[in-house]
Amino acid sequence: MRVIFNEELKAVADDLDRMARNVRDAIHGAGEALRNQDIEVAQSVIDGDVETDKLAGSIVDQCVRLLARQNPVAIDLRVVVATMRLSITFERMGDLARHIAQAARRTYPNSPIPADAQDTFNAMQDFLDVTADRLVTMLADRDVATAESIIREDDKLDELHLKTMRMAQSDDWQVTHQQIMDVVLIGRFMERLGDHAVSASRRVIYIVSGFDPAKEPGRDEGTDID
Amino acid sequence: MRVIFNEELKAVADDLDRMARNVRDAIHGAGEALRNQDIEVAQSVIDGDVETDKLAGSIVDQCVRLLARQNPVAIDLRVVVATMRLSITFERMGDLARHIAQAARRTYPNSPIPADAQDTFNAMQDFLDVTADRLVTMLADRDVATAESIIREDDKLDELHLKTMRMAQSDDWQVTHQQIMDVVLIGRFMERLGDHAVSASRRVIYIVSGFDPAKEPGRDEGTDID
Repeated sequence: MRVIFNEELKAVADDLDRMARNVRDAIHGAGEALRNQDIEVAQSVIDGDVETDKLAGSIVDQCVRLLARQNPVAIDLRVVVATMRLSITFERMGDLARHIAQAARRTYPNSPIPADAQDTFNAMQDFLDVTADRLVTMLADRDVATAESIIREDDKLDELHLKTMRMAQSDDWQVTHQQIMDVVLIGRFMERLGDHAVSASRRVIYIVSGFDPAKEPGRDEGTDID
Repeated sequence: MRVIFNEELKAVADDLDRMARNVRDAIHGAGEALRNQDIEVAQSVIDGDVETDKLAGSIVDQCVRLLARQNPVAIDLRVVVATMRLSITFERMGDLARHIAQAARRTYPNSPIPADAQDTFNAMQDFLDVTADRLVTMLADRDVATAESIIREDDKLDELHLKTMRMAQSDDWQVTHQQIMDVVLIGRFMERLGDHAVSASRRVIYIVSGFDPAKEPGRDEGTDID
């Protein structure tokens, strides 16, 4: 019984790793599409999201079967519950990367981002590229140090995001309404990607330690995880 | 053993009902704050979100304990898994209602919504008020017909949302940049509230029938559920 459980748990962990790699590729691709007006990359991110969604559904199904047949307890149960939640988080991250790719495709061959905001958006994208790579490593190695660095550094992304919001607020900024809308929405998609990466990092810490850092006293648990 | 399980399941179902009522009140309150520039209601929505977040954490913990100690199968297992997912969805809905209330508080005593867009936003809010009431009934009665009507009618909210986006896009619209940003973000929060209500409805159908309508052929499962 125990051997079967571990084999099945291994299979679902492999699927979750695959999902994390898909999400990493989608984040990299969305950034490239946005930065270089690369419509082919944009399209491949959009098309690729279907597989990510399917993986999410399959992972939840596998977890429910594991719970039904194997009655996991302690660390194994934590792994199964956290795996379900991670798959839901990764599905949302895939959706957000797809939204960015769709914005890049819509304005092709131009960028949706006004020229003088592109440096800040590139910095956000650089940040997310690193985060996406870290997500994959963190998950494959159940690496708490990487998870903690993702949680700790998310403020940098929020600061960049705030900078884009301040630019957009100024009525002196010579841009179209559509450009303001794109700056606001793409900025929010990126900020949300960072929030979901933080949420995923908390789940990995929970798997390893059984401790949920979202419940640390004084931490504003619900903030912006929507 | 069985009696204990049902008692514990009843306790967590009561908490989930409580969460749904909190979310309903938050949605109603956010709408009232936005419509009537009522800063006291706005503040109570913002303050109330703390309890909703705590309930979500408590519900997930209770579900994990149930899974560990009772090894539920079949319908009971479906209920536990769906309850976890519903609590996560309701937590996000609480966050979104809080974001709307925060926008209303920020611009007090003015509305963040330009006068000529207020009718459309009021219509979105009317729609969400009905949806919020339906969520509570649907959950308390495990009512599939109500769940299906929430899923079916979400298009109406999307149409209203699209109308606000079209208004914002026009460079002839005499508004400030900040007003465009608020129209875009508050509109998106409302649209997302509708999406999450759809997602919750699917979970209720899954509890009752064991069938996940998100997996219906041809349905775009991952769309915008982020």
